[in-house]
Amino acid sequence: MDSKWYFCNELSTMELKKIIEEKSQESWEIYLPSISIDCVVFGFHDATLKVLVLKMKDKNLWGLPGGYVNKLENLSEAASRILKKRTGAENIYLNQFRAFGDLDRSEGFFEEYADTVWNKQRFVSIGFYALVDYSKVNLIIDNFSDACEWKSIEELPEFMMDHQTIFNTALITLRKQLNDKPIGYNLLPEKFTMPELQKLYEIILGKKLNRGNFYRKMLRYDILFKLDESRKGGAHKAPDLYQFDLEKYEVALKEGLNNGW
Amino acid sequence: MDSKWYFCNELSTMELKKIIEEKSQESWEIYLPSISIDCVVFGFHDATLKVLVLKMKDKNLWGLPGGYVNKLENLSEAASRILKKRTGAENIYLNQFRAFGDLDRSEGFFEEYADTVWNKQRFVSIGFYALVDYSKVNLIIDNFSDACEWKSIEELPEFMMDHQTIFNTALITLRKQLNDKPIGYNLLPEKFTMPELQKLYEIILGKKLNRGNFYRKMLRYDILFKLDESRKGGAHKAPDLYQFDLEKYEVALKEGLNNGW
Repeated sequence: MDSKWYFCNELSTMELKKIIEEKSQESWEIYLPSISIDCVVFGFHDATLKVLVLKMKDKNLWGLPGGYVNKLENLSEAASRILKKRTGAENIYLNQFRAFGDLDRSEGFFEEYADTVWNKQRFVSIGFYALVDYSKVNLIIDNFSDACEWKSIEELPEFMMDHQTIFNTALITLRKQLNDKPIGYNLLPEKFTMPELQKLYEIILGKKLNRGNFYRKMLRYDILFKLDESRKGGAHKAPDLYQFDLEKYEVALKEGLNNGW
Repeated sequence: MDSKWYFCNELSTMELKKIIEEKSQESWEIYLPSISIDCVVFGFHDATLKVLVLKMKDKNLWGLPGGYVNKLENLSEAASRILKKRTGAENIYLNQFRAFGDLDRSEGFFEEYADTVWNKQRFVSIGFYALVDYSKVNLIIDNFSDACEWKSIEELPEFMMDHQTIFNTALITLRKQLNDKPIGYNLLPEKFTMPELQKLYEIILGKKLNRGNFYRKMLRYDILFKLDESRKGGAHKAPDLYQFDLEKYEVALKEGLNNGW
């Protein structure tokens, strides 16, 4: 499934240009000028971390799912709508993390269009990110010009515009979030072992962690409880099973982990 | 000095309205639509934490220093220019922390103006914050409609629009930054005692810290060196003096403190 392509329609370059020019006037009417949104959706499943990317039709260019903000819409509503419309992904909680507003961020794009075309304007893009179990996300492309897939963060295609910077900043933010907020719920099975939880952290951080330190630090966060059961099967000593204490997990999500000053 | 008022000009409500309407057309020409900037400048000095606030003329309304982005200017350049123009404060390094884009964030403002007036448009505001030694900032108000001063964060006036939310988010971000980046350089004397450094952290965090834990954690960060001298004078045992190891301090600023996973 992962590398499957979804094309809803095949358009020539000429046809695409005509559509963009026609849609331009509508865009000026319904969207807030100068502001766009880009979403970095990290997907974890089965010990791999991926990111949701789109391919721009006709250009062999890859980018993050993005779009514009309706004049009568909050930023976060716009981010959810865009992600749903561009990928079919629903109910993903997105965190805003940074605005990208360099003058030259879209240099060279839409050069062949008139200066008044909506897409050719300068946009400050508000970045949102999320971490989801990608096996639970149902991608349905309903946009005519894109294809969409999960790509491993180690094998990313070359991104258009400043999307590599947006991705990098999102990854740094996600990694920092591990020091401040719990993760794992909805990404791991309901009951999991400490090595499984450690593996999740290692994959996001992109580095090995010391087992003893991980164990101590995680218990100090006080968001887990140990179950009276252990995992059956296998030749080794059955590992202890843990579960998130959802009440404490929620508090830690709101107030931060017991980790800082 | 702290509570001194700076008025450059006295204008009637009618005169102010006329100026805003006249400036509106110029604003449409030079600024990027829909985007504004707000700056939260925290000032520390002599064991107190303050924030830079402006008073809107004629309205007895308080707000954060803010403004708009020129069409040919990066976001961070705009933030520095705005802060300098509105407060006289120069060379302050501002960190972008969040965009504020709720639909109703400026509800009721500029109601008496025509819908086409620049200031009445919907703006998504990009928040920037900084922490400086306020005794080193030279406030010179060159804007006709504001007054500007440092206010203690415990005795803030009622803010207009969503500026209380912007301030709160900046304070939370600054507090989190203490877990990730070093602070103190340029805020403390070159040579300082551990209790002085602890006091700085306590004032920013708004809570007392355990002395032993603070000491251990700070040494683990490995950004200080202990001097061979101690502070003279006083009846008690002379406290040890420390200095930041600026090379390590710079690395920690870039790469984060030795604190996370």
